[in-house]
Amino acid sequence: MTDLRTPAVIINFKAYSEVEGDKALRLAQACQDVAGRTGVSIVVCPPATSIAQIAGSVDIPVFAQHVDPFKPGAATGRLTAQLIRGAGATGTLVNHSERRLKLADIGAAVDMCRANQLVTVVCTDTSATSAAAASLKPDLIAVEPPELIGGDVSVTDAQPEVIERTVAAVKRVDDGIKVLCGAGIKTGRDVKRAIELGAAGVLLASGVVKASDPASVLEDLVQFL
Amino acid sequence: MTDLRTPAVIINFKAYSEVEGDKALRLAQACQDVAGRTGVSIVVCPPATSIAQIAGSVDIPVFAQHVDPFKPGAATGRLTAQLIRGAGATGTLVNHSERRLKLADIGAAVDMCRANQLVTVVCTDTSATSAAAASLKPDLIAVEPPELIGGDVSVTDAQPEVIERTVAAVKRVDDGIKVLCGAGIKTGRDVKRAIELGAAGVLLASGVVKASDPASVLEDLVQFL
Amino acid sequence: MTDLRTPAVIINFKAYSEVEGDKALRLAQACQDVAGRTGVSIVVCPPATSIAQIAGSVDIPVFAQHVDPFKPGAATGRLTAQLIRGAGATGTLVNHSERRLKLADIGAAVDMCRANQLVTVVCTDTSATSAAAASLKPDLIAVEPPELIGGDVSVTDAQPEVIERTVAAVKRVDDGIKVLCGAGIKTGRDVKRAIELGAAGVLLASGVVKASDPASVLEDLVQFL
Amino acid sequence: MTDLRTPAVIINFKAYSEVEGDKALRLAQACQDVAGRTGVSIVVCPPATSIAQIAGSVDIPVFAQHVDPFKPGAATGRLTAQLIRGAGATGTLVNHSERRLKLADIGAAVDMCRANQLVTVVCTDTSATSAAAASLKPDLIAVEPPELIGGDVSVTDAQPEVIERTVAAVKRVDDGIKVLCGAGIKTGRDVKRAIELGAAGVLLASGVVKASDPASVLEDLVQFL
Repeated sequence: MTDLRTPAVIINFKAYSEVEGDKALRLAQACQDVAGRTGVSIVVCPPATSIAQIAGSVDIPVFAQHVDPFKPGAATGRLTAQLIRGAGATGTLVNHSERRLKLADIGAAVDMCRANQLVTVVCTDTSATSAAAASLKPDLIAVEPPELIGGDVSVTDAQPEVIERTVAAVKRVDDGIKVLCGAGIKTGRDVKRAIELGAAGVLLASGVVKASDPASVLEDLVQFL
Repeated sequence: MTDLRTPAVIINFKAYSEVEGDKALRLAQACQDVAGRTGVSIVVCPPATSIAQIAGSVDIPVFAQHVDPFKPGAATGRLTAQLIRGAGATGTLVNHSERRLKLADIGAAVDMCRANQLVTVVCTDTSATSAAAASLKPDLIAVEPPELIGGDVSVTDAQPEVIERTVAAVKRVDDGIKVLCGAGIKTGRDVKRAIELGAAGVLLASGVVKASDPASVLEDLVQFL
Repeated sequence: MTDLRTPAVIINFKAYSEVEGDKALRLAQACQDVAGRTGVSIVVCPPATSIAQIAGSVDIPVFAQHVDPFKPGAATGRLTAQLIRGAGATGTLVNHSERRLKLADIGAAVDMCRANQLVTVVCTDTSATSAAAASLKPDLIAVEPPELIGGDVSVTDAQPEVIERTVAAVKRVDDGIKVLCGAGIKTGRDVKRAIELGAAGVLLASGVVKASDPASVLEDLVQFL
Repeated sequence: MTDLRTPAVIINFKAYSEVEGDKALRLAQACQDVAGRTGVSIVVCPPATSIAQIAGSVDIPVFAQHVDPFKPGAATGRLTAQLIRGAGATGTLVNHSERRLKLADIGAAVDMCRANQLVTVVCTDTSATSAAAASLKPDLIAVEPPELIGGDVSVTDAQPEVIERTVAAVKRVDDGIKVLCGAGIKTGRDVKRAIELGAAGVLLASGVVKASDPASVLEDLVQFL
């Protein structure tokens, strides 16, 4: 289903003040520049309010940060797969650690995205929940192990087995699902190491989005891809 | 705080298939046409993905359907007051019956909107919760009495006292807050009746959004304003 | 981990008026009587407020209807695995369709129950979410297919493949997990049919709890076990 | 409606390990002893699993920590007002900061409790949400100002105006509703000060529940009442 080229680097813009208004577009353009210069597959996930503007301006993939598992209808304040697709997104994060969903809703959201040609990246926390998510048949799974979130812990220095174990658990359920490393990535060396450990890419956020020179930071991060 | 001209007619686009992609813009333009022809104060509430496009194209107020009570930051999939404002909205619905919030979160959302120059329309269900919402100092309260939701019950024929009781309960707490009637509006006569009962306007949805000719339906609805 | 004897019949008391106050104990005693007369493995799931009284009075297993995925601590209004275990329950339903949990929370709840010697019965809706739940390693999975909920649809007459497909999907992930049929059971013949289709038992509710003579109804239901 | 004698001291047992199993009963008995020795009105809020045992053993009021705003029926894992009342509770906390409810659900819960002769203590965070809660007509409101939660901040030393402002805001809406101070109480002097500031009592938790000698700590806290 997915035609997302890997290894992929996905940038989650979150709701940082650095992406309010037109700033989201400028960040997306910086990401596009790096993709152009380096040839690396880079995806941007702007706030929903900026999807249409960015999708109309850049030629790298634009994903939503979240999709609501609702059918079109009386669902005030909800963003369906159709609305996201209609705005120009070609994929979406699902179940991010800051936007967790119920199990049944993840299943429904993945099904609805598939029916609307949206690539799904389901976020998980442990190898057990990653294997669980694999049964729901998303395109990719981004694991954010609590052991690697926050602080200065990087996947290179600490706990590489978390990634290996998750990749193995996911592949055991469905060999076609790709795994992204969603935490513990601080440097280009970490990105390279995540790929060596079996990941098909990384999910990044503040390190790029809040940088004073995002293009330069991103270029460093993807240098070994 | 609010400079929303009343009586006001607010159109909630919800997540209907009728407002996917560019269809939301065309509906907003139809609403703008009616506002122009009739001089009535009309507000549109498109899905978040269409706010920027519509706010950049029409000159009637554009409100969000929902705001997340989060500060700018690591809030994946959330739309802060800043993001909504940055997209061009000048107000937002809060606590719609299809998107209920916790009491503390309604208070936080209203405060955050006020700090970002967004008009707030807090939705409620009973005269008691309307009075409660009034203590949080939103600009408007839209009451959707369960007695008037669905079916063919209209505010004209049935239960006008629901509106009068809510207006009185809200004014007792804060005389500066305006009350909208959010259910039971089927015809222009219902709109007129709601105003006579003390409402400062109405909140409409499917009757307009799902109509084959929304402009014509809306023009009928506002004919006595 | 589980020593739950199968085939098992689990009775979910829900929050029906028929189980308020001491009525829950009398219903549990009726279930115990049927277990004694028939030799069938019967489990009762009373409201949390009745667990201690019932666990102290009957000798059939008592399960909670829900466990909160919280550690002991400042968790007002939450029931931890320790509190449920401390009241005398030896297992619990998790993620019932009327009490859905986030994926990460199901994983956490199952782990906490295992650490506190509580048998877990994770409820699911489709074969995909059942397979997903299997990766979290609960003791049992009770599938409540939407196709079989409500109305007069029974597993015997309609859609037996829903059960077979779910059993197969779960066993593919973990052969040690037992599957219960959680919907579409109206008669003793349905119970028998569910077992033939690969289920290790059934999860029942209103049919027994709201019956004027629960013991008689339950005895009919288990007659072919 | 309420016959809760004031000034009242309410002890929230939360889900601390100190109240698992029969330990909750022993703590409730210690509270009863202090009530007997001092004549102070003391209320205990044990986990739902211990309500029946404690209500059957002590003669001080037993309140639940939470009530679900559901009618009796198919509500797995939910505790209705009827179930809590049936277990012997005579009141309940509602909307505790660790168990927040939607505005409409607080309204529904208070109404359901009133219909079932349960005293309601709605918890709030600011003077605005306290005033809002007052419109829902609970018996008491317990304000837990964020400024007073955690650390060593006490109501005596810091920010007494938070209590005064909340009492005034609540009385303006409904003079019959009593206000409890739910944070910043460390010593007997703080309890006395809260009363002087207009509170009708205090809501306590870890200071008593996690003490090595709860009776002694509680006796100190109520010494000036």
